[in-house]
Amino acid sequence: MAIITLTTDFGADSPYVAAMKGAILSINPAAVIVDLTHSVPPQDVRQGAVVLDDVTPMFPPGSIHVAVVDPGVGTERAILCARIAARLYVAPDNGLLSRVGRRGPVERTVRVENPKFWRHPVSRTFHGRDIMAPVAAHLSLGIDPAELGPSAEMSGRIEWPEPRVSADRIDGMVLEIDSFGNLITNVTADLLAGRPTDQRAVVVCGIYETYGIFGAYANNPQGTLVALIGSSGRLELAIVGDNAARRLGIQAGTPVTVAWE
Amino acid sequence: MAIITLTTDFGADSPYVAAMKGAILSINPAAVIVDLTHSVPPQDVRQGAVVLDDVTPMFPPGSIHVAVVDPGVGTERAILCARIAARLYVAPDNGLLSRVGRRGPVERTVRVENPKFWRHPVSRTFHGRDIMAPVAAHLSLGIDPAELGPSAEMSGRIEWPEPRVSADRIDGMVLEIDSFGNLITNVTADLLAGRPTDQRAVVVCGIYETYGIFGAYANNPQGTLVALIGSSGRLELAIVGDNAARRLGIQAGTPVTVAWE
Amino acid sequence: MAIITLTTDFGADSPYVAAMKGAILSINPAAVIVDLTHSVPPQDVRQGAVVLDDVTPMFPPGSIHVAVVDPGVGTERAILCARIAARLYVAPDNGLLSRVGRRGPVERTVRVENPKFWRHPVSRTFHGRDIMAPVAAHLSLGIDPAELGPSAEMSGRIEWPEPRVSADRIDGMVLEIDSFGNLITNVTADLLAGRPTDQRAVVVCGIYETYGIFGAYANNPQGTLVALIGSSGRLELAIVGDNAARRLGIQAGTPVTVAWE
Repeated sequence: MAIITLTTDFGADSPYVAAMKGAILSINPAAVIVDLTHSVPPQDVRQGAVVLDDVTPMFPPGSIHVAVVDPGVGTERAILCARIAARLYVAPDNGLLSRVGRRGPVERTVRVENPKFWRHPVSRTFHGRDIMAPVAAHLSLGIDPAELGPSAEMSGRIEWPEPRVSADRIDGMVLEIDSFGNLITNVTADLLAGRPTDQRAVVVCGIYETYGIFGAYANNPQGTLVALIGSSGRLELAIVGDNAARRLGIQAGTPVTVAWE
Repeated sequence: MAIITLTTDFGADSPYVAAMKGAILSINPAAVIVDLTHSVPPQDVRQGAVVLDDVTPMFPPGSIHVAVVDPGVGTERAILCARIAARLYVAPDNGLLSRVGRRGPVERTVRVENPKFWRHPVSRTFHGRDIMAPVAAHLSLGIDPAELGPSAEMSGRIEWPEPRVSADRIDGMVLEIDSFGNLITNVTADLLAGRPTDQRAVVVCGIYETYGIFGAYANNPQGTLVALIGSSGRLELAIVGDNAARRLGIQAGTPVTVAWE
Repeated sequence: MAIITLTTDFGADSPYVAAMKGAILSINPAAVIVDLTHSVPPQDVRQGAVVLDDVTPMFPPGSIHVAVVDPGVGTERAILCARIAARLYVAPDNGLLSRVGRRGPVERTVRVENPKFWRHPVSRTFHGRDIMAPVAAHLSLGIDPAELGPSAEMSGRIEWPEPRVSADRIDGMVLEIDSFGNLITNVTADLLAGRPTDQRAVVVCGIYETYGIFGAYANNPQGTLVALIGSSGRLELAIVGDNAARRLGIQAGTPVTVAWE
């Protein structure tokens, strides 16, 4: 049972997503297709890279993950197929795989060049439907990625700054805003291990601050800004019962500091 | 072919939903997963309870329905697995199942406590992914619900006031707003049986009124407020070709009266 | 593996869509159901017709396509099942199939009248769930469309004006706005074949104009209005990195002219 997930910036419920599914099912009618999300902000490769890294590890080994956030469609940018941590990824070479690529050894990367596995005629503006979806469908039927094209290296790069850690503080940033408006940071639970999480810890995000790092939202009153370790294993800032990003006007990239006296 | 439906307040197209699907498919790659809706307003347990009751009976017996509207995640609230009218439900014990639970005998309820069937490590903020989705996946593989934990009673309660019925009037309320903005009431077709539905019947909702109870929208001119028996077998108020809730500013809970002279 | 696609105006993530899926899976639990889109504007039969024609050909022959944009639900309008270009379509007879019907011979059309294949009781306001979804499920199990009802002709009509073509200009219109806000016209690549696509071609849409017809978005700077042949094989107008429809205030129906000096 081959699983193919789709991540795009086409917008929720876009018919373009259905076109990709039709292209897949035309090649492998037994493929199990799962929408990861189509609400990546248009052309926001960085956000696409974060969500791929957050969610694709939840799928079983052997899954095939197609990601189409592709401002360079129709230009000379390459399309890659990479095997990372026992999963296959098909995406443009623009940094979209740069974050998931840090999870484990990138076992093998090929440049998708063999038109045998594409849908024809190939539109110059919709490689998701005409190249990436068909290639994923063929992979789900068991072809060797080596048939897709020659070995390659990922060249698309995005900087993923690590938090700066010192004895009395950790300086990180908001990495993404989730669908609840929670602010997910790049400060991992590992970095916080062994540090006090009670009121001695102050978490500062932009002009806002909160004391203590909690285990869950619900222990705090509605409307409170709380810091907690979220479901992705990273420090989050949330307003209980509200949308923190909207309420506080905070965006990805905002500095976040955890400090101890 | 085991069917698992998902109902959440995560928002349409949320990657958190995809994470739940990944957790399910990691346990049962053959599960058929169907989105019921993810547009329950955040933490609106009441609305979640209504939509579960409206839609889950459309699925075949044996289906498994997971519902995650869970303001108490990470606190001591229980998670239940209940068998109701030949279907299995997995949800927090906060009233989310209180409406579907009136449909038929609640044949068996257990408290989900056996971590053997969970995803580990268990996040304190995302039991949907780490407990409820994996439990549903194991149920879809055929485990006995008794393996999940000890017998329990639903304790989460929501009041579902019944309409007051007298000789010349029925006093009910708007139960939910549907995706067209139609106002779905708690006045069932059964309550109206044998009563006149022509112009002698006046339907009052807030400050608005309309005469007669129709069979369909299209017999009336655009812009007309009409009362009709909707697809859920309950009295609805709709504006032909428009969004009644938005146009009239009416919310769930608004009193609705049907009166006869 | 029978594929059933769903196209409606119920809105993304509507529980009414889930109800249709439950009705299908209750009859054929092995059906593969794919959302084409549910974001057709309410009762916009024309837009529904365009999206069906754009996307259903991407699915394999034998697929079954259900379309519910049905302002006449509950009136005497017929429901049709038509075989067009090796695919089956189930839709109200209101013009929704009038565009896909031009793709190839409409091999056979029947009027859906046999209640044996419906869900009962049949709501007067939700034939999508009670008639069209069950009929599609039975078709996916292999019944002969002739069992559904008597032969019929499509009577619902929508005008699809063809572009006017002359030696130095083509006069067409915006056919639809896609999920990126791109303006998709009714001017096909075929009509442009053999004509200059360089700066000698001027494309005028409403009060806006642009020179040249490009191959892809990305060769042009952000914010530029560009004309190109899009993934549907038709002339499109787009603003690189922006939503053209919103930015320019242009709607479906706006005249588009391509002229050469």
